[in-house]
Amino acid sequence: MIGSVFGGLRRLAWLSLLAVVAAVTSATAQTTQDGQLQVPAKSVPVPNTVSPQLAKIIGMPLRNGWDVLPKTGEEWVPIVQATAAATLKNVPGMLERLHVKVEKTTIDGVRAFVVTPETIPPQNQGRVLLHMHGGCYVLNPGEAALPEALFMAGFGGFKVISVDYRMPPEAYFPAALDDGMTVYKSLIKTTDPKKVAVFGSSAGGALTLEMMLKAKQDGLPMPGAIAPGTPMSDVTKVGDTFVTNARLDNVLVSPDGFCDAGTVVYAKGHDLKDPLLSPIYGDMNGFPPTILTSGTRDLLLSNTVRIHRKLRAAHVEAQLQVFEAQSHAQYYRDDTSPEAKDAFEEIALFFDKHLAK
Amino acid sequence: MIGSVFGGLRRLAWLSLLAVVAAVTSATAQTTQDGQLQVPAKSVPVPNTVSPQLAKIIGMPLRNGWDVLPKTGEEWVPIVQATAAATLKNVPGMLERLHVKVEKTTIDGVRAFVVTPETIPPQNQGRVLLHMHGGCYVLNPGEAALPEALFMAGFGGFKVISVDYRMPPEAYFPAALDDGMTVYKSLIKTTDPKKVAVFGSSAGGALTLEMMLKAKQDGLPMPGAIAPGTPMSDVTKVGDTFVTNARLDNVLVSPDGFCDAGTVVYAKGHDLKDPLLSPIYGDMNGFPPTILTSGTRDLLLSNTVRIHRKLRAAHVEAQLQVFEAQSHAQYYRDDTSPEAKDAFEEIALFFDKHLAK
Repeated sequence: MIGSVFGGLRRLAWLSLLAVVAAVTSATAQTTQDGQLQVPAKSVPVPNTVSPQLAKIIGMPLRNGWDVLPKTGEEWVPIVQATAAATLKNVPGMLERLHVKVEKTTIDGVRAFVVTPETIPPQNQGRVLLHMHGGCYVLNPGEAALPEALFMAGFGGFKVISVDYRMPPEAYFPAALDDGMTVYKSLIKTTDPKKVAVFGSSAGGALTLEMMLKAKQDGLPMPGAIAPGTPMSDVTKVGDTFVTNARLDNVLVSPDGFCDAGTVVYAKGHDLKDPLLSPIYGDMNGFPPTILTSGTRDLLLSNTVRIHRKLRAAHVEAQLQVFEAQSHAQYYRDDTSPEAKDAFEEIALFFDKHLAK
Repeated sequence: MIGSVFGGLRRLAWLSLLAVVAAVTSATAQTTQDGQLQVPAKSVPVPNTVSPQLAKIIGMPLRNGWDVLPKTGEEWVPIVQATAAATLKNVPGMLERLHVKVEKTTIDGVRAFVVTPETIPPQNQGRVLLHMHGGCYVLNPGEAALPEALFMAGFGGFKVISVDYRMPPEAYFPAALDDGMTVYKSLIKTTDPKKVAVFGSSAGGALTLEMMLKAKQDGLPMPGAIAPGTPMSDVTKVGDTFVTNARLDNVLVSPDGFCDAGTVVYAKGHDLKDPLLSPIYGDMNGFPPTILTSGTRDLLLSNTVRIHRKLRAAHVEAQLQVFEAQSHAQYYRDDTSPEAKDAFEEIALFFDKHLAK
């Protein structure tokens, strides 16, 4: 059979293309001297492949203050409060459009919100989702944590408990993780863990993965499914899209920006390579079915696809959805965009498939 | 409940952060004047998150001759032959390492290769995969079409029929599609369509999708599953990563490069927006379960994820795998890279799940 392949080569010989062949093969055998690829500057338009709502979000300038890098929990306070205020303005409209209500509560000493949709379909009656919000471990305290929980409850028809975990300057690593675990442990006392899913994006995506590692350490049962969105799964700045999507992602902008600064403050000297801060370095055997979400412009696209491959290598049922032209976590920026509905309905379908009834 | 949200707002008021709030909210409400984002030039290193084999491929310079744009089928000949010769050099080693053999054949007048692995596991004995090779509708004639078929047969343990479809200057649109359909129709005369899967990358990924559209038009049964890899699903240059991954993808390099030129020659004046050339514009209802493959640097990442979302919107079971730092179709460049094994074993698992036994 190898003979027939070389038959192909013989056909080529009489074409006397040896010079061209040599040029092609020598070029493909070379590597650049230092392995660095020089990518020229670009003007990047808003693509016409997204909804008008999403086009508006994609067309926004780089996040204001992306390169402001507070060094302590106290220095973060004014930025945290300003960002929260901007988010809170949108919450009342979301509650109304998504037909959900919110109640403040405390669970074994941890602050939380219970988000309940007006209508819970029969198959979701006994199911509960646990939400870990994003914000680089420093942003989105109190009601500012809510948007993603509201999207999930509204589009998915699930009861959601959103954990308002402690953050700097109130507390540091591993406070956020501990608060998530406290609520999870409380929840599975009364609810079959197979009827529980954990989800969250960015730091919340990392916390979702960290909680699975911690639950394994502590001998706790796994939930029925998880949905880490664009997880901060590697906070050591390792991953190709930290470079390729820098200055293109208009939310995170750069691995040397505000989000990294927030994480360093939260870690307070703790090793960033600890799997409880960079879960990509953890052992994912035995993880529950997982659905991951990202966007093509997401600075954390590598963080997301690396987790996907690692889960698959550990034989975990894992699905990936990547949205056209979206920067970091833009799937939960506008509840009126069809892309948001698509993203959360996909997660809801995945949960419905994998959670016990 | 809205009351508790506004409680959060009242807490903020006494912090007198109104000026900061105003700055944040006004910035996030602006869009750039013309919606264009200015991304500065970058030096992009080879990431340390891939295997040494893949690092070598990622570190290669931009494809030699990426901006050579032949305008006729005849002008393509020397480039086609030179590229094929470079590929053929690697085929004997692949046959040996992947433990597969190849036989040349003709099926209802269409040239094809039958690729058979040394060992076919029991569940795959009655199953057959149909392979449509890539190459912008002009490249990879004869045995140069084989590498992806060899990877699939070797890593997956399937018998593969690889269609050596007609290309310019021998024939033009819709010759490649017609040849694929001829082989498919012949195959399903003797094999249950549910035991057949169709796969291919780049133009082969597009042809895979185009064949499903054509099969629907012709009232033919769908195969059991398909695996379009980084499909040329939109050849009208629409899609965000045509811009964002330009000059970063070291294989295709630019939407104005050789691959686009090849497609234009094949189309020979036919409307590029025809779903039989740009399947993204086709109706995907009733498509079989689909697994899609791409990479974070792939110029066709948008082409891939847009198909994924469109399939899901049509309620098709569809999975996506995206590989760290890979440019266009680099998952079948080196059969010794663990990433290649991973990609094809994932596709094989998907086929095993969805094909009839």
